[in-house]
Amino acid sequence: MADSPNCDLKSLSPLQLFERVTEQGEKVRALKAGKAPKDEIDAAVRMLLSLKLSYKTTTGQDYQAGLPPKDLVLINNGTTKEEDEDLVDPWNVQTSNAKGVDYDKLIVRFGSSKIDTDLINRIERAIGQKPHHFLRRGIFFSHRDMDQVLDAYENKKPFYLYTGRGPSSQAMHVGHLIPFMFTKWLQEVFDVPLVIQLTDDEKYLWKDMTIEKAHEYARENAKDIIACGFDVNKTFIFSDLEYLGTSAGFYKNIVKVQKHVTFNQVKGIFGFTDSDCIGKISFPAIQAAPSFSSSFPQIFNGKENIQCLIPCAIDQDPYFRMTRDVAPRIGQPKPALLHSVFFPALQGAQTKMSASDPNSSIFLTDTAKQIKTKINKHAFSGGRDTIEEHRKYGGNCDVDVSIMYLTFFLEDDDRLEQLKQAYTSGELLTGELKKVLIETMQPLVAAHQERRKQVTDEIVQQFMTPRKLAFEF
Amino acid sequence: MADSPNCDLKSLSPLQLFERVTEQGEKVRALKAGKAPKDEIDAAVRMLLSLKLSYKTTTGQDYQAGLPPKDLVLINNGTTKEEDEDLVDPWNVQTSNAKGVDYDKLIVRFGSSKIDTDLINRIERAIGQKPHHFLRRGIFFSHRDMDQVLDAYENKKPFYLYTGRGPSSQAMHVGHLIPFMFTKWLQEVFDVPLVIQLTDDEKYLWKDMTIEKAHEYARENAKDIIACGFDVNKTFIFSDLEYLGTSAGFYKNIVKVQKHVTFNQVKGIFGFTDSDCIGKISFPAIQAAPSFSSSFPQIFNGKENIQCLIPCAIDQDPYFRMTRDVAPRIGQPKPALLHSVFFPALQGAQTKMSASDPNSSIFLTDTAKQIKTKINKHAFSGGRDTIEEHRKYGGNCDVDVSIMYLTFFLEDDDRLEQLKQAYTSGELLTGELKKVLIETMQPLVAAHQERRKQVTDEIVQQFMTPRKLAFEF
Repeated sequence: MADSPNCDLKSLSPLQLFERVTEQGEKVRALKAGKAPKDEIDAAVRMLLSLKLSYKTTTGQDYQAGLPPKDLVLINNGTTKEEDEDLVDPWNVQTSNAKGVDYDKLIVRFGSSKIDTDLINRIERAIGQKPHHFLRRGIFFSHRDMDQVLDAYENKKPFYLYTGRGPSSQAMHVGHLIPFMFTKWLQEVFDVPLVIQLTDDEKYLWKDMTIEKAHEYARENAKDIIACGFDVNKTFIFSDLEYLGTSAGFYKNIVKVQKHVTFNQVKGIFGFTDSDCIGKISFPAIQAAPSFSSSFPQIFNGKENIQCLIPCAIDQDPYFRMTRDVAPRIGQPKPALLHSVFFPALQGAQTKMSASDPNSSIFLTDTAKQIKTKINKHAFSGGRDTIEEHRKYGGNCDVDVSIMYLTFFLEDDDRLEQLKQAYTSGELLTGELKKVLIETMQPLVAAHQERRKQVTDEIVQQFMTPRKLAFEF
Repeated sequence: MADSPNCDLKSLSPLQLFERVTEQGEKVRALKAGKAPKDEIDAAVRMLLSLKLSYKTTTGQDYQAGLPPKDLVLINNGTTKEEDEDLVDPWNVQTSNAKGVDYDKLIVRFGSSKIDTDLINRIERAIGQKPHHFLRRGIFFSHRDMDQVLDAYENKKPFYLYTGRGPSSQAMHVGHLIPFMFTKWLQEVFDVPLVIQLTDDEKYLWKDMTIEKAHEYARENAKDIIACGFDVNKTFIFSDLEYLGTSAGFYKNIVKVQKHVTFNQVKGIFGFTDSDCIGKISFPAIQAAPSFSSSFPQIFNGKENIQCLIPCAIDQDPYFRMTRDVAPRIGQPKPALLHSVFFPALQGAQTKMSASDPNSSIFLTDTAKQIKTKINKHAFSGGRDTIEEHRKYGGNCDVDVSIMYLTFFLEDDDRLEQLKQAYTSGELLTGELKKVLIETMQPLVAAHQERRKQVTDEIVQQFMTPRKLAFEF
């Protein structure tokens, strides 16, 4: 950190300013304790007051020791959450609204940008084809710097895609496929390299699980990811536990990030406490590092500064807000982001699905019969209590999970619209709607299972071997 | 952590107990905040009171939130140090006593064991030769579990040596050689593998230094270490920044340690604060991991549980106290330790030498003339103000830096004894004593420089290449 505190205060984030005030406060205390000369103490105190003023001007709040700027705490830390606010962080998604999280509010709170019609049209012009229905239907609804990525693309400058998964159990559910389905589409239309991080180290740190089991899940999950249809010549999948031991570039970026993020910052962003293990505390740097192309010298020929685009669910944004904060300070470009909404549990949109509850979603290992039973038994319905009432008043598409799932998985726009109208008008009954969903999900899951069977350990090994991809850098 | 808090409280260290009380306090607060049933809250409160009682019984102190057990803070954290206590941690060594740190007190405070005559005799019997003068003269003065290492050795069970260095600048001074000279002797008499860690990542994290510079220093320092005469077939030298990217075994052990150490613990042991970067906070795990043989699968054929012995200066002990605390919880043997005293600055034993002050010691790059000038000009003398007084009252060997340096570097026991007696009696003048030191250090440094010249980049590369050594496992 520079000695002169005033030269660049305006460029600092609220958290950085908070850090500066805290540091200066400690300096003043140290000077006083060390009985330093009076003029030296006075100068340090003047600087402290000036920093506190800058903090108040920037955040609109008085500096309080130990309490990072409020908006970040509000966003991430459940304990100070306002009553009617949704809780969204990498480990929790909670809302009291049956329609799900209020995403427009989330955009304001996270400070990201809405994916609006202008941006979707620009993407369509850039790629010369109709954008993916995840974009058209607002499933990917928020972004950071996607305009820059398109600028680069239009100027023939390279970029790459980065997404990932925390392999917490062998069985993945259909919701886990969303980022991968979308990333596959992005890779195809833009023809760019893709890196996929499997954070087996994270799962080991957070769960009651051996390192071997976490790593085994990573390789099992890789099969489901590969079954989405990725091109082995353009895609590198890596487990942290493996790749960290094969790439000096990756570790160097991790240490660089770790040098530029304090405990105060991760406390503010992720809600860590003093009782958390040091592995959790330093982990955010490991999810940050793949945002920098120098983490993959074998792919990018050692080139730094290649723009990264990260498609992910919005709950992962805290990691990348931190990454974007650090990037300029370590001479790297900020990664761009595309954020998706959460995939709802069968029981309703109030919670994110959990891989540990078999009835909370359709799993990629489910049989046709299991899919049918689950949907019929557990899919929360927006229909009326009786057929008569339903015919008279119609169903509520906003809270109906079958409609939500079809919005994700039924590609035919017209058909979806018809179903929604018929359900709203009461013409279509809940049982009939569920039948459509069953008939949509059964072949989708069966086809996935068929493709997954083809994914041998050798193919996994190919994807997970650090190597050059089919791109020149 | 187990659910039942009472089953094994007696086996917990004060810090672990502190952790348990803190966690239980958080649980009680969470239950109250969540308006849990009264009996559940009552049970949690009873458990909290019982834990607090165990804490008080074990530590003799009342539990205070945020304040880890006092003895650890006293040892490591300058801010709460008693007036007349020496400050010793990995970054600071301070004493107000011209004779240097009180090592007997340090043994009591650190809870290690004194290397006494019995142990020295046992070593002599085990190796069948006279122990190194560093042992005979109390330069290596303290140990942990050296008896176990000797048990293993006598039973033909393997062990290995681990030492290291933080490469903070290109120039090393003669004091930096102490652990390496002693480790070389240990390796020769016991004929065991040796791993030497160069913590270039640590230096990057702590200093205002680029990653490239830290790594460059590591390779430069490796030359001076190799020049001590290590056998390339029995020694593996590694830079963290390099080796982490080539060994999955190393990273796995790092993550294991990181999962089992909390921020509260590193705060207590190393005095970290909330303003420290997450890289510093998680670094202790990186210095801990080489204590486990599975960090070097290429050397130990993937075998875990091979006993490690760490010769180091006593200021590094906090890292290994932490390591020994974690080891059984991750199913690994505790590393044994041999601790050395600090090498005094030319100006006197009150401070540890600093590589950043060229006059504070004799550097391995100094010319014969520089050595002469430095000793004549800066070596603190225990002699009297005038020749007459010196002849009459004699010199004080306890504070005389020339005597101290000769204790390190003059191998001839009889000669050293003669010099001490002659100086104490006043027969030997300060100028004459300094001449002996000059004549001891000049050829020693010149010989080192000669050997260092022979160390090419290729030889460094050989030592630093992960490979099998000349031992079967």
